[in-house]
Amino acid sequence: MSDAGESIDTEAVVDLIGALAYGQLTAFFHLTRDAERAPTLAARAELARLAVQEFTRYEVLVKRLTSMQVTAEVAMQPFVAALDGFHERTAPADWLEGLVKAYVGEGIAADFYREISVFLGSDVHALVSDVVSDDGQAQFVVSQVRAAIAEDPRLSGRLALYGRRMVGEALSQAQRVAADRDALTSLLLGAGPSADLAELVKMFGRLTEAHSRRMAQLGLSA
Amino acid sequence: MSDAGESIDTEAVVDLIGALAYGQLTAFFHLTRDAERAPTLAARAELARLAVQEFTRYEVLVKRLTSMQVTAEVAMQPFVAALDGFHERTAPADWLEGLVKAYVGEGIAADFYREISVFLGSDVHALVSDVVSDDGQAQFVVSQVRAAIAEDPRLSGRLALYGRRMVGEALSQAQRVAADRDALTSLLLGAGPSADLAELVKMFGRLTEAHSRRMAQLGLSA
Repeated sequence: MSDAGESIDTEAVVDLIGALAYGQLTAFFHLTRDAERAPTLAARAELARLAVQEFTRYEVLVKRLTSMQVTAEVAMQPFVAALDGFHERTAPADWLEGLVKAYVGEGIAADFYREISVFLGSDVHALVSDVVSDDGQAQFVVSQVRAAIAEDPRLSGRLALYGRRMVGEALSQAQRVAADRDALTSLLLGAGPSADLAELVKMFGRLTEAHSRRMAQLGLSA
Repeated sequence: MSDAGESIDTEAVVDLIGALAYGQLTAFFHLTRDAERAPTLAARAELARLAVQEFTRYEVLVKRLTSMQVTAEVAMQPFVAALDGFHERTAPADWLEGLVKAYVGEGIAADFYREISVFLGSDVHALVSDVVSDDGQAQFVVSQVRAAIAEDPRLSGRLALYGRRMVGEALSQAQRVAADRDALTSLLLGAGPSADLAELVKMFGRLTEAHSRRMAQLGLSA
């Protein structure tokens, strides 16, 4: 591998970890806010627990950045506008939309970061996979949403629409980041050891498939 | 000790842990909300870290309640109105008031719970002391407030007033709880093995003294 190749890699690693760290930090704040709308104290605490998990993961990423002599704030800054924009445009209208966002939004983001990290070596891939893993706590979200739809089937149309809109916003913000961050984009589009177009198409296929599976889990059509 | 005495004790223990648990849970939500007003990403993450610590402590208390075959929600319910009322009436107007609340409000609450727990046996006292201990993270709050006052000394008047108002509200909500919860109140006012009036006066003296010390730490007059 050439020196230039190595320097592109480091930049892409910092970008990926920085984006993921800010993603976890904002998810913490948004999930906590959504939790305040829970119908019961128990549900509120349950969603708060998911939020706290995001923060714990954020701290793991900050530690890694620090070990690379990178300040977390500097690494996160390029992704603040896109991620804040995403949350602004997908603000849940109620408790149930908040749950759909927690499950479907977090899910597709996790898959996306995990896919990208494959190109950054086994060490980064292991870190990212570990940070985005779902320890089964999201099961709470699934059961809440399914119970609500069972009680009022008309909900499923609105929630499915919300889920689709959210993925659309996620894609459009991802494109915005891609246009800005050469190191990350060239990873995907072919400078150096990278994915070719066929690989990229396959990746989007996998993301879409997993997304549809999650929607179905909630009882929603993707 | 008589059977009646023992049953009062258990009720008081559940009350104390329930109140403290709901206190930690609401503190988590309020601190997180306050963190969103932080002037920098670093400060935001720092206050979020304090919030997450409250949640972690909440979980320790829930575990204890569960081990006593008590549902957390049931134990917390009697204290929801008083604690929500406190937070409503002391909503910080800005980031700095949020910091004063995090340090001064959490501090006096911690002292209060620790003092009460003395009457409930060494086991409960150890649990409560552990849960309310400050691991030094509040140092961040102190340095932020002091720096802000150094830059604009006029702030100290408003922040001192806010600190005093907060303690007034805490006392008035504590009275509200005392009027409602016989088991806790009789602990303090003399049914069974309890504090006498002289002891109570001393306790309030200690609480006030520690409060003044915290205000002084922030550069504020109590």
